[in-house]
Amino acid sequence: MTRSTAELSLRERIGQINQRLKGWEAVEWVDGAPRVTDVLRREVDRWGGIGAIYGVLRADPWSQVRWSNGIPPERSAEAYEAVQEVVRTRGSGLPTLFVEEVPHGLMALGGTTLPVNLALGAGMDVDLVEALGAQVAAEARARGTHVALVSGLDVLRDPRWGRAEECFSEDPALAALLMEATVRGMQGRGTHGRIADDRIAVVAKHLAGQGAGIGGRNGSGAPIGGRELGEIHLRPAYVAALAGVAGFMAAYNDIDGIPCSANADLLTGVLREDWGWEGIVMADGTAVDRLRDSTPDPASAAALAITAGVDLSLWDEAFTHVEEAVERGLLDQALVTRAADRVLALKRRVGLLEEAPEYAVADPARCHPPREFLELVRRAAVQSCVLVHDDDALPLRASAVVAVIGPNADDLDAQLGDYTPPRPADDPQASTVRSALEARHGIGNIRYAQGTSHRSGLPGDAAEQVAAALSGTDAAVVVLGGTSRRSYDDEFADNGAVDGPAPDTTNGEGVDLSRLALPEAQLDLLRAARAAVPVVIAVLIDGRPRPLGPLVALSDALIVAPFPGPGGGSAIVDVLASGVGGGLLPATFPASDGVLPVAHDERLETARGYVDARHPAGSLLGSGAPAVSVTLRPDSVTLTSEALRDGGSATLTADLVNDSDRTASLAVPLYGRRHELGIRPRRRSLLAVERVRVAAGSTTAVGFTLGLDELGSWASGRPVAAPVEVVAWTDPSHDPPPDALVVRVTDEEGRTGWEH
Amino acid sequence: MTRSTAELSLRERIGQINQRLKGWEAVEWVDGAPRVTDVLRREVDRWGGIGAIYGVLRADPWSQVRWSNGIPPERSAEAYEAVQEVVRTRGSGLPTLFVEEVPHGLMALGGTTLPVNLALGAGMDVDLVEALGAQVAAEARARGTHVALVSGLDVLRDPRWGRAEECFSEDPALAALLMEATVRGMQGRGTHGRIADDRIAVVAKHLAGQGAGIGGRNGSGAPIGGRELGEIHLRPAYVAALAGVAGFMAAYNDIDGIPCSANADLLTGVLREDWGWEGIVMADGTAVDRLRDSTPDPASAAALAITAGVDLSLWDEAFTHVEEAVERGLLDQALVTRAADRVLALKRRVGLLEEAPEYAVADPARCHPPREFLELVRRAAVQSCVLVHDDDALPLRASAVVAVIGPNADDLDAQLGDYTPPRPADDPQASTVRSALEARHGIGNIRYAQGTSHRSGLPGDAAEQVAAALSGTDAAVVVLGGTSRRSYDDEFADNGAVDGPAPDTTNGEGVDLSRLALPEAQLDLLRAARAAVPVVIAVLIDGRPRPLGPLVALSDALIVAPFPGPGGGSAIVDVLASGVGGGLLPATFPASDGVLPVAHDERLETARGYVDARHPAGSLLGSGAPAVSVTLRPDSVTLTSEALRDGGSATLTADLVNDSDRTASLAVPLYGRRHELGIRPRRRSLLAVERVRVAAGSTTAVGFTLGLDELGSWASGRPVAAPVEVVAWTDPSHDPPPDALVVRVTDEEGRTGWEH
Repeated sequence: MTRSTAELSLRERIGQINQRLKGWEAVEWVDGAPRVTDVLRREVDRWGGIGAIYGVLRADPWSQVRWSNGIPPERSAEAYEAVQEVVRTRGSGLPTLFVEEVPHGLMALGGTTLPVNLALGAGMDVDLVEALGAQVAAEARARGTHVALVSGLDVLRDPRWGRAEECFSEDPALAALLMEATVRGMQGRGTHGRIADDRIAVVAKHLAGQGAGIGGRNGSGAPIGGRELGEIHLRPAYVAALAGVAGFMAAYNDIDGIPCSANADLLTGVLREDWGWEGIVMADGTAVDRLRDSTPDPASAAALAITAGVDLSLWDEAFTHVEEAVERGLLDQALVTRAADRVLALKRRVGLLEEAPEYAVADPARCHPPREFLELVRRAAVQSCVLVHDDDALPLRASAVVAVIGPNADDLDAQLGDYTPPRPADDPQASTVRSALEARHGIGNIRYAQGTSHRSGLPGDAAEQVAAALSGTDAAVVVLGGTSRRSYDDEFADNGAVDGPAPDTTNGEGVDLSRLALPEAQLDLLRAARAAVPVVIAVLIDGRPRPLGPLVALSDALIVAPFPGPGGGSAIVDVLASGVGGGLLPATFPASDGVLPVAHDERLETARGYVDARHPAGSLLGSGAPAVSVTLRPDSVTLTSEALRDGGSATLTADLVNDSDRTASLAVPLYGRRHELGIRPRRRSLLAVERVRVAAGSTTAVGFTLGLDELGSWASGRPVAAPVEVVAWTDPSHDPPPDALVVRVTDEEGRTGWEH
Repeated sequence: MTRSTAELSLRERIGQINQRLKGWEAVEWVDGAPRVTDVLRREVDRWGGIGAIYGVLRADPWSQVRWSNGIPPERSAEAYEAVQEVVRTRGSGLPTLFVEEVPHGLMALGGTTLPVNLALGAGMDVDLVEALGAQVAAEARARGTHVALVSGLDVLRDPRWGRAEECFSEDPALAALLMEATVRGMQGRGTHGRIADDRIAVVAKHLAGQGAGIGGRNGSGAPIGGRELGEIHLRPAYVAALAGVAGFMAAYNDIDGIPCSANADLLTGVLREDWGWEGIVMADGTAVDRLRDSTPDPASAAALAITAGVDLSLWDEAFTHVEEAVERGLLDQALVTRAADRVLALKRRVGLLEEAPEYAVADPARCHPPREFLELVRRAAVQSCVLVHDDDALPLRASAVVAVIGPNADDLDAQLGDYTPPRPADDPQASTVRSALEARHGIGNIRYAQGTSHRSGLPGDAAEQVAAALSGTDAAVVVLGGTSRRSYDDEFADNGAVDGPAPDTTNGEGVDLSRLALPEAQLDLLRAARAAVPVVIAVLIDGRPRPLGPLVALSDALIVAPFPGPGGGSAIVDVLASGVGGGLLPATFPASDGVLPVAHDERLETARGYVDARHPAGSLLGSGAPAVSVTLRPDSVTLTSEALRDGGSATLTADLVNDSDRTASLAVPLYGRRHELGIRPRRRSLLAVERVRVAAGSTTAVGFTLGLDELGSWASGRPVAAPVEVVAWTDPSHDPPPDALVVRVTDEEGRTGWEH
């Protein structure tokens, strides 16, 4: 078998850096067996091999793959093997990489679906995210997948963006902690070489700054500066690089005018020269073709991308013009070899170039999630539910007669998020709020009405049905929000994003919204409940921050659940039953439309309001903590920048007291404000977060270790030790309270630059 | 008399760079004569002189100066002389600079008030703006003012910003053309040395990027990159520097984390090292004190600002700590001397260090505007009125019985803009739409009702009054919009910005709005008119872009008039009477709230919509052209970058045909899209604009000269010649039409980098 690019012709090398095929067009499932297509054979013959094939297992409306026509989960390895056989025997002998979408679970029939990233951001549980990653990786690898495309680099800076749900947080530290945990979980800890047979190579996406797109419009320009890029957007990528992530996907957007796919400073300067990272850079789908406005023709686009540092295309036509680009002198042939070498290095990392290649070890039995995986998923869903306010409405008695109304009360698909495979008909994971309430209270005690669709009211007698459902009940649970549902009738862009009217879809790729306030038709359900029922509990299931003011005003309790996955109903009912929330808001929920963008970490002098909206940052990141008192021990901490650079750290300790009669499992954030000479400070950032459990009536202590990541400057995109004063606190206030602590990083003479 | 800093002690030098006093506290007008205050004497004694004094003539609610207690216009020189006498005799002998606000006319009692910059932006008349500048300068200099603080550098990138009215445009080319014309007009053409006795030194504000503040919030951070800064925000400053502008004011905001007042790269690197500019950098009011979060104490703040390149403070306490900063080793004394030298150089430029110093030449007779000045102001107001649509409603017959309703129908102060002195009781300039209609149609044919306030409805029988006014009329002119009115009861921040509730103020410094859609109460007036009257003409008098959709839908014609000044009523009625608009929209008026920021020059792949707002750029910059056909001659133009660098240019010619029966005076914009390898192009930018007059039924031609400013790259903040293809067109479409021309700038081998 071929083992290096030295054995390949230019054409074969070009084949290694092309990932043109959509996998569902390469192999079909017919009469209970895989059938490879002429599309696959032609592509293999064209290049003498294929570097990677995307989405053989992908099942969703865009691919038009369903349970009725798709590859059964336990037969995935067979389908892959049929493809691999064609690639191996008709080409140079190099096997191909199988690449799949794994943004919150494998996007294939039967893939276990996790809560979306924004939900994991609410949970703020690094260990759990790592454990989930390991389970997801095992499941995908058991089918024979080599490479997972995993969202998590994008930082949520504008909730109008339909892809907000794919972000962990608006805060770069939280996003970085969870991205790092994801890479460690999926690839294994400390793995910079061979990835174990129960793990999977991760291509983290997207690099970089996509969350800073103007107006939250998908793929739009991010005209940001180097400090904003470094402090906010590069941080998750840097920790992923350090954790040995196999690849990065270059984003669609431009940064200050330079498209990421053409950005040599980013893809080569930052990633390789500055960070010393070795791995593969993949284009986003058709992103090289989208260089059409920045280059005169496809060959030039391919040359620009490869020269900048894109190693592997995705669906692009432009990469088929590489030979032309070399012939026209636009592209150095050595750069084609460089890219092909990186593709081969990745094949080596996943075991594809070994004598007994990994694709033979696929394990059909492992395609179905073990019980411990499902338990982890369920825990993640519970921890993602944020109890924003509770005016003594909770816990909800199990004997209560409850009306459950609203568009998200009994719509399983609506609670899943984007990039999700179709659910199986009988899914043991599945629960909606309605079904979970019926299970707890008895079916006879639950009255259901949908009330509205996601964007508007329903025709007919919907209002009467709502009134009937509410009548005579003890409490109303009003489940509102949005949905990333795609339908098999939708229209899609050439990259699978929604590109049609999608009349009742509000979230997901291609579904950006200018108005985030919930439609009046949804708020009318709360008003109807308020008028008819003694206790009103609002639940917001959604993939993005929304203004919460009207929901708080019209309810006795409010639970925010970023798309919690198929088990979301039961997770939400857990919170109703216990009266204790699971997580904290992972982003700032704006006070109203019209104030965007807004974030908890805007710089001072910035964090001001409008005459008609005095406090734009309505509900801050970190809102929703249970009634546990948190007190920082009054330590004064000083360390030198040299010690920090050499791995030193400071520790702050918080004492937690749970005076309530309920056990609290909570995330404890440590906030900070940095004072550096000549820099306008951000009002508040997240320094660290620890997840702890405090039994009813008990106390515990939690330590925050502050090292280079927490105390260094990220202005350059990686942490640098320098003198600074950092004010630290734990309560949810936007500004440091009087008892905030000061951590000092000094130069050798003991100065922070902040002496008076 | 002292002539150089070598003759000054450190204390005296520090005095030269301090501009702490508010002029209205230095001299008062008592019993018909100026009376200098102890505040002035103490300040002079403290430093042995004063570098500059701000606002001796300022009259407005913040200063609490009115006609009843202020300095009469023709006595201004006396007041200045009384101050100068104290400064000269008690200090080192150096006279002080008198600095006044002159953003759209001198902000002093009796000062001639021009339309705001945004209105001049609509007029797009470079020659007129230069002529206005000369008149304004002559008026101020005749009173004895030396230095004018002049808005114009800010580029309108978010209409939520209350200071939008102070911007010429969202487009940097238009802003630069009008800024350059302003400097030439006020200082005189080609003056890099002594400024003539009928002109005035200009400090242009603000540097830089203030228009890019997050969310349009005043003074908020601008986390932009170098290309965005160079292409959009530095361009007006660069042309002002080349025109010899005397000074720049450093802005409040930070750029990517660095406050402008502490930004050495900007104030020293860009201005002096890169552009070779020599002049003075003034702080914005209290801006050095506002470095408090970026420095440990005031001495450190002063040191940071002076080291970065701030030469003269404004009201700051920090600059009184300069000696301490030198003593503590925070600040090199030579930098204090550098700053003081620059202050003295400015005194020299305005003639203050000559044997017969300029302040003796003040000419009370010239304090009142000559007729030709008022005619220019009137022309500017007419040219600023944009006829956005006209469904054959205009011209309005002079015999028509007309209802004129709305909050801006008869509110003179509301049409003036911010930074405006109180009007005299009998102002010959003054007209509202109501008074101008009464003058044209006869008072008996005009029915008036206010209808609403600016922000909400009015109590009592306002609706009945509106109905009565509308009843039986031929047409309704509904005059809506906002106001920058300050009241003598308002609360102000330490820099004079509005800082209280200002319940009926919607615009101006400190009055940022999250919702730009006109209040429903105002739209209800249109609805009432629509229901009652055959012809409805909407007029929007405002200082910022607003969504126009509802106004267009509810009217037969719509005129947009950025605050047109005291003569605005008559200017608007001119348009009603002629049926021909004067200007073009100087910025993009967004389709709706929730889509901001949006601009006509966003980059491709950016200029996309939301699922609930498909076309965010509602009414593009350049909308409102009269019915004159414009056809570019199909020239193909190529020049080398070397020729461009050496002053070469290309010329495109447009033929204009006015088939109508009305003379058209119009601005003809030339739009362009630049194709540079590896850069994502802006969808559309303004390349050039020419103002022309085409008589009814006649034709004319207009030439566009495209030189380095128009064809060079501004990515670095000054124009650089490099190969490029620029597609050019004149019609108002957002994308190039099929007959767009291509201008090529090639390298020596004839390549643009865009060959196929």
